[in-house]
This record gives sequence, structure tokens and C-alpha cells, in this order.
Amino acid sequence: MSITKYIRTISDYPKPGIQFRDITTLLNDAEGLQVCINQITDRYREQEIDHVVGIEARGFIFGTAVAYTLGVGFVPLRKPGKLPGPTVGIDYQLEYGEDRIEMHTDAIREGDRIILMDDLIATGGTAEAAIELIEGVGGRIIECCFVIDLPDLGGAQRLRELGHSPFSLCQFEGD
Amino acid sequence: MSITKYIRTISDYPKPGIQFRDITTLLNDAEGLQVCINQITDRYREQEIDHVVGIEARGFIFGTAVAYTLGVGFVPLRKPGKLPGPTVGIDYQLEYGEDRIEMHTDAIREGDRIILMDDLIATGGTAEAAIELIEGVGGRIIECCFVIDLPDLGGAQRLRELGHSPFSLCQFEGD
Repeated sequence: MSITKYIRTISDYPKPGIQFRDITTLLNDAEGLQVCINQITDRYREQEIDHVVGIEARGFIFGTAVAYTLGVGFVPLRKPGKLPGPTVGIDYQLEYGEDRIEMHTDAIREGDRIILMDDLIATGGTAEAAIELIEGVGGRIIECCFVIDLPDLGGAQRLRELGHSPFSLCQFEGD
Repeated sequence: MSITKYIRTISDYPKPGIQFRDITTLLNDAEGLQVCINQITDRYREQEIDHVVGIEARGFIFGTAVAYTLGVGFVPLRKPGKLPGPTVGIDYQLEYGEDRIEMHTDAIREGDRIILMDDLIATGGTAEAAIELIEGVGGRIIECCFVIDLPDLGGAQRLRELGHSPFSLCQFEGD
């Protein structure tokens, strides 16, 4: 079953010409949330996974439910200054300006098998930064999992070119 | 089983004299995450709940796993400017300065039975603002659920005085 019907499109947000794909209607719907998390966890249930890593903030929403259901731990990648222990971090480019994500240095061990989780892949800049952080401490990324892919923005293709496997539950073209 | 052993304490964060209770070690531990989410969902499984509402960002981490496991929908309360649809919002006082949380206007219907979820209750300012938002659109809060309570900071007591039922999985005194 496609989850597309649970996702609301809001035109001209956050600026004119943008079709914003809103996952809050998916989350709000008991059936939608079941279908979404079940589709993700069914994909990884037979695989040996050590951690699900979720990117702040919407990656937290999906990542912990997936980690709990798979019976593995969850690792948050956070915006700067939010994690209390020793961290590693990485700066990355946005369309306008820069951003940074951080991870606890001891969150992932050498060889850990990781699912990277976020709500959406657009240009892929955040995912690429997350991959660099995780691999930098020796984590092995089994798959990068997104609820939504906007393929016209090229992020999934970029991850494939870097040797990674992006997976998404649904795609919206023409964005 | 107490979840206390999974929580790491980091002294003098974010400033001298503060004992920071770090839930990332709980999340990171597959068993810790199971115990935590199971204890919360066991408490509400026999109750009729419509939505779990989680407060950005750590309330997202626990809230969606709880909502999914209970088979209900999840509603995020977000920092300003993050929700794409029409919102209601509320400003509230912090120890230093002000903050604001927002909710989609159509996220909760009159009479919906709600569990409010956050990682921690300290002075209770954020929880109180969340309660006002939820009740303002007609939601009925069945319980306010926290992973950690710092009772010396008085938040849980304040919620009780307002007629609410705060529940927490563990308490750290002397903070």
C-alpha cells in the first residue's frame, strides 16, 4: 500500500513555487503511521542491524519507532550544542548558508551495522554529512532510509554515486 | 525494572553545578529502549487513547514509538515556523528569556484523548504551555508522561496543582 495518500501537500511553503510535502498528516493518522513504520521495519527485519541513526528533528520521529520495533538502539544526530557528551561534528552546505550536525563520539562502534533514517531526501546534503560522520567513527551504513524522495532534486542519485543505497517509501516528482 | 541504570549523568552541563541526565545512552542500548517504551505502552494499552503528542525535539524520540506501539496517531508540537499548515501557538517563560511552541490547528479534534509525552519534566514550563495548547483546541489530556522527573524543580507538583496527572518512569532527586 502506498503511503502517498497520507501525505499532505502545501503549496508555496516555505516560499512561492515550493510544494511542501507534509508528513504530519501521515503521523496523525493511526493507520498511516502503522503502514509507514511496518513497511520500513519489514524491509530490515531479517537483517543484522546494530543501530538506527536519525537526523534531527523529523528523523527522530521515524527513527526511534523503527529502532524499537527492530529491537535495536537509536542514535540521534543533533544540531550543534545539544548533545552533552564528547561529540564529533561536521559542517555542511545548505542552499543558502551552512549547517552542522553532531553525534556523540561513543554512540557508534567500529563495524556497527547502521540504518540511517530521515523523513525526506531532497538535495542530499544533510544525508551526505551524516554518512561522513557515521563512517568517520567506523560505522557501516547498510542503507539510507527515507519516507519521501524528491528525485528531481538529485539527492538519492548523489548517494548512489557515492556508493550508498538510498531507499524511500514514496517519491514525488516534479518538485 | 528501573531504567535509571541506562541514563548517563554528565556533571556541569550545560553549566557548572548542573547534573545533566543524558537519555542518549538509554536510546543507544537496545534493551534500554525496549524497557523504556514497553513500560510506557503497558501503562496505556488498556486505555482508549486517540493521539500521543510529543514536544520537540526529545519528545519526538519517545512519542512516535509510543504512538506506533499503541496503534494511535502522533502529533508533534514544534518550535516556531516549522509546521507548514495553519497553526496555533503559545509563548512561555524559560529561566532566561522566552520560547514558543506551535501545533497544527487541525491536529487534534474536540474530545480527543491525549497522552502528552516529553523526555523530562523540570520546572514544567514547557509542559504547561503544551497543555494549554492541547486543551485550547478541545483535547482531553489523559496523562502527561515523562521518562525523567526532577522533582526538586517542582514541575510535576505544579502540574498536579493544575489538576493534571504527571507520570514519570524515573526520578532524580537533589538536582
